[in-house]
Amino acid sequence: MLAKEQISEWFKGLQDRICLALEKADGHAVFQEDLWEREAGGGGRTRVIQQGAVLAKGGVAFSAVHGSTPRPILQALQLEESDFYATGVSIVLHPVSPMVPIIHMNVRYFEMSNGVWWFGGGIDLTPHYVDPADARYFHIHLKQVCDRHHADFYTRFKEWADHYFYIKHRQETRGIGGIFFDRLSDSEGMTKAQLFDFVQDVGEAFVPAYTYFMHKNSNLPYGEAEKQWQAVRRGRYVEFNLVYDKGTKFGLDTDGRTESILMSMPPVAEWLYNYQPSPNSPEAYTLQNLKKGISWV
Amino acid sequence: MLAKEQISEWFKGLQDRICLALEKADGHAVFQEDLWEREAGGGGRTRVIQQGAVLAKGGVAFSAVHGSTPRPILQALQLEESDFYATGVSIVLHPVSPMVPIIHMNVRYFEMSNGVWWFGGGIDLTPHYVDPADARYFHIHLKQVCDRHHADFYTRFKEWADHYFYIKHRQETRGIGGIFFDRLSDSEGMTKAQLFDFVQDVGEAFVPAYTYFMHKNSNLPYGEAEKQWQAVRRGRYVEFNLVYDKGTKFGLDTDGRTESILMSMPPVAEWLYNYQPSPNSPEAYTLQNLKKGISWV
Repeated sequence: MLAKEQISEWFKGLQDRICLALEKADGHAVFQEDLWEREAGGGGRTRVIQQGAVLAKGGVAFSAVHGSTPRPILQALQLEESDFYATGVSIVLHPVSPMVPIIHMNVRYFEMSNGVWWFGGGIDLTPHYVDPADARYFHIHLKQVCDRHHADFYTRFKEWADHYFYIKHRQETRGIGGIFFDRLSDSEGMTKAQLFDFVQDVGEAFVPAYTYFMHKNSNLPYGEAEKQWQAVRRGRYVEFNLVYDKGTKFGLDTDGRTESILMSMPPVAEWLYNYQPSPNSPEAYTLQNLKKGISWV
Repeated sequence: MLAKEQISEWFKGLQDRICLALEKADGHAVFQEDLWEREAGGGGRTRVIQQGAVLAKGGVAFSAVHGSTPRPILQALQLEESDFYATGVSIVLHPVSPMVPIIHMNVRYFEMSNGVWWFGGGIDLTPHYVDPADARYFHIHLKQVCDRHHADFYTRFKEWADHYFYIKHRQETRGIGGIFFDRLSDSEGMTKAQLFDFVQDVGEAFVPAYTYFMHKNSNLPYGEAEKQWQAVRRGRYVEFNLVYDKGTKFGLDTDGRTESILMSMPPVAEWLYNYQPSPNSPEAYTLQNLKKGISWV
């Protein structure tokens, strides 16, 4: 039987491997680490990188927290009081160059003393400029990971991502999506060990997926117009995370460590009133492709 | 009997007077106007100023919308289906200089076909640097307005503002507060006309309050460190508005005009991981004074 501590230890190792790979790919900045403890039980290891050659600001966070289940979760699940254990790795990276996409990844495990357990997670890509070849590369990479575990996973989790990473008030998706899944448990017809295998594969898929874009795109030329557009898109990222993201909301509602939760914020964001890109520009093309239901593979 | 159209016409005139006074005080930029209609009834007149000499970005919005009452309101009030009419003026101004405070003002009237009606509103000041003399000036100005209408208003509404304009996850107030009030109706022991008088006084208090700071503070010297701190404080403003502000939330939830709702966003905001001002700095002093319950008068 897979113990929660084994899962959490594996997540910790994943954080180490990802930070090392990102430092190597950046070539300039290193992660600064903050250890924190949660008063009610557990804690975490937040690692933040700033002012790198490729990465402007980003975080790779590990946490394993436990205690009595927060009221919002109990209410959402209509459950009685119980203890919980939650562990995971969460990443958001904001690159220096507008030609390199923003990326987010999260893998997590949750269990309660009443025997309920599940895995959740996802990876999604937010290019400042949508490039169909890059989008295709990213989605094929994720599809391959999914296909190794279940024939339906990619289709289901790609659609789930389209719906989850959606900025309703803008009628825009956050980016070109990816995969998103939550509350995966034995009701999937898979054992905990099999689901953990899948989640491990998702976690390990992060480095090759993102370092590919770091290497390929970070030397592409750009100017002030592209920086400006990046700042506007970063504003949209802020809007999604503060208005819709369930992890952020849950973290803030349950008095999580604010600086760890909001490490997802970009270094800088801009808001221009009623900004409309000019017709037929790469910015307009990007907006046209921030839609649900686009098949990129 | 005071008709809703009279209230709305007065708000429209208030918007005109405020925009004229702000253009004059800025001396450089002018407001651009967008008229919009709401599919389900009514519309608005959004006016935005950008890249002024004193005002970096801001909006003064008038709206008068009507139709069937949105479900979230009905649920909150535990009411049956009915029609509503809502009108008001809403302002947020982000100045160029970190030495000039951000300001917000809102006055509004709401009524339903079942006879329920109320006024709401408030003014609050968000200095990037707290200056006790400025804070005192602002609060005395508001206290004078309140005292002309009800002996308890300032005390009640100042405390209400302290609680409302609070960034829970930062354990900081948004700024030095001001006044906030909602659902004022005849249960106050005042007639609709008397409450409207008060709301009109609040509306007219805006120009003298803010142009005072525009004139007095916009030529104070500052450097890169102050601009940086301003960008961080603007990030907090974004956090408050997207996470907690009820007007923003309600607007986004009910498919309001996004660009009018989010005209409150600053032109630029920054997030630095775990930023701590140095001890005994003006920034540290500011943080110490972003607390509930400080008496400024």
